[in-house]
Amino acid sequence: MKRIAIQGEIGSFHDIAAHQYFEGEQLQLICCNTFEQVYESMRQDPTVIGMAAIENTIAGSLLHNYELLRDSGTTVVGEHKLHITHCICCLPEDDWDTISEVHSHPVALMQTRHYLEHHPNLRIVEGDDTAGSAKMIAEGHHKGWAAICHAEAAKLYGLKVLENGIEDNKHNYTRFLVCSAPQKADMLRPLVESNKASIVFSLPHEEGSLSAVLAILSFYKINLTKIQSLPIIGKEWEYLFYVDVTYNDLTRYRQAVDAIIPLTRDLKILGEYRAI
Amino acid sequence: MKRIAIQGEIGSFHDIAAHQYFEGEQLQLICCNTFEQVYESMRQDPTVIGMAAIENTIAGSLLHNYELLRDSGTTVVGEHKLHITHCICCLPEDDWDTISEVHSHPVALMQTRHYLEHHPNLRIVEGDDTAGSAKMIAEGHHKGWAAICHAEAAKLYGLKVLENGIEDNKHNYTRFLVCSAPQKADMLRPLVESNKASIVFSLPHEEGSLSAVLAILSFYKINLTKIQSLPIIGKEWEYLFYVDVTYNDLTRYRQAVDAIIPLTRDLKILGEYRAI
Repeated sequence: MKRIAIQGEIGSFHDIAAHQYFEGEQLQLICCNTFEQVYESMRQDPTVIGMAAIENTIAGSLLHNYELLRDSGTTVVGEHKLHITHCICCLPEDDWDTISEVHSHPVALMQTRHYLEHHPNLRIVEGDDTAGSAKMIAEGHHKGWAAICHAEAAKLYGLKVLENGIEDNKHNYTRFLVCSAPQKADMLRPLVESNKASIVFSLPHEEGSLSAVLAILSFYKINLTKIQSLPIIGKEWEYLFYVDVTYNDLTRYRQAVDAIIPLTRDLKILGEYRAI
Repeated sequence: MKRIAIQGEIGSFHDIAAHQYFEGEQLQLICCNTFEQVYESMRQDPTVIGMAAIENTIAGSLLHNYELLRDSGTTVVGEHKLHITHCICCLPEDDWDTISEVHSHPVALMQTRHYLEHHPNLRIVEGDDTAGSAKMIAEGHHKGWAAICHAEAAKLYGLKVLENGIEDNKHNYTRFLVCSAPQKADMLRPLVESNKASIVFSLPHEEGSLSAVLAILSFYKINLTKIQSLPIIGKEWEYLFYVDVTYNDLTRYRQAVDAIIPLTRDLKILGEYRAI
């Protein structure tokens, strides 16, 4: 039995993603209100595995989760991509003419922005979670409130789906990272089978410093699949770089990392895992 | 008299930024609810200048504004950096023991996240704007509601400041871009005085494709100050690159852009302007 810490309730996208990633395995979910609590659960019990969204094709990267991951001391052991669909739902006795506000996670609200613009009378209220908003409405029996969540969560909590598939863009995918304590990582993914790594480093603001790093990765035939510069908190307009790379040869990849270390500051390997 | 379209009310951060950028000039503000409306105002009247936040040291890039800028056909003619501070405020007769919810722009809510965690009983409600939330509470006389905004806005709307300087991180700066119709750009900034450009392009997913582009920029002594990869909507896991570069020699910079065009797809210069 694996114990998985997720952000969100039963029925949340993290729940769905965890069950897809660990298909066929018995899971015990630790449902957390915040991503901070996901990493806190792992700190308190190193046998707990964490699963956290890291980017979405519409909303972009979840910057705060990058920061939590970097500070957590955990290692990325896998990734999962999930197709995201949203519905709007309410108590069975409510309907379009009786609802006055809509609750959901900020990212879900952003992903249904155009849809919600057609319903300007609905007050938009941020919640911790998509499925949690559905649960809160069902359990608190909040008349006049709607939630935005996956249709599975609406069903689970006995809510009426007013409309399904309300996401603005149908090409809506979220990428999740699976993390564990470093000493547990090799049990979860044999390192020799890894072909992708997530790395973070900072660079001095000198002409061509990023170019040199990427040139070396290219010389070693390491493929870059993502780059994200982030402001360093407390140092305005200096940037951290979050980079994802893929490789066929683990040794060659390790040599490439060794080769860029002298040109970077504070390089940290967030994890090596199997690309999907 | 310059006419400036901003997102937000009088007293908003955009208002403060506009008056700092165009210091000493007479301005007529066009206050818009959304960034879409800012660009719509410019489309309807090409003499209107737009000002829009593009990144923040805490929240990162405003991805949606990058998209709007790219699609708008307007040109960036300048940038401005503003130090952001927040207060929490309410009606004069309210106090900590009588407020039950807090309204503000999602970015302001994110920037005061740790502060708000110490007030878990406050319901967090998204609004269009920081100063707009203050205005709404003052004009609607909403008892029990608080707003998060700049202390100037609280004062402007006659609200009581419960606490000032509540932003989690004191190094909180927002960068704004000033945009205009291309035919008006040279009146607003002589091109020959420009030393910074914002560029967007996409790249095929081939090993070393970004490395080649950055190497060329480096060979031409063009300095990279920011890079941001964004998922292309509708093409999962392919990325657009938003890049800021600085240069001392306009001709050399133009030659560098010519040199990278054949290696990129859909390259577009968003604007050339004076770095601050």
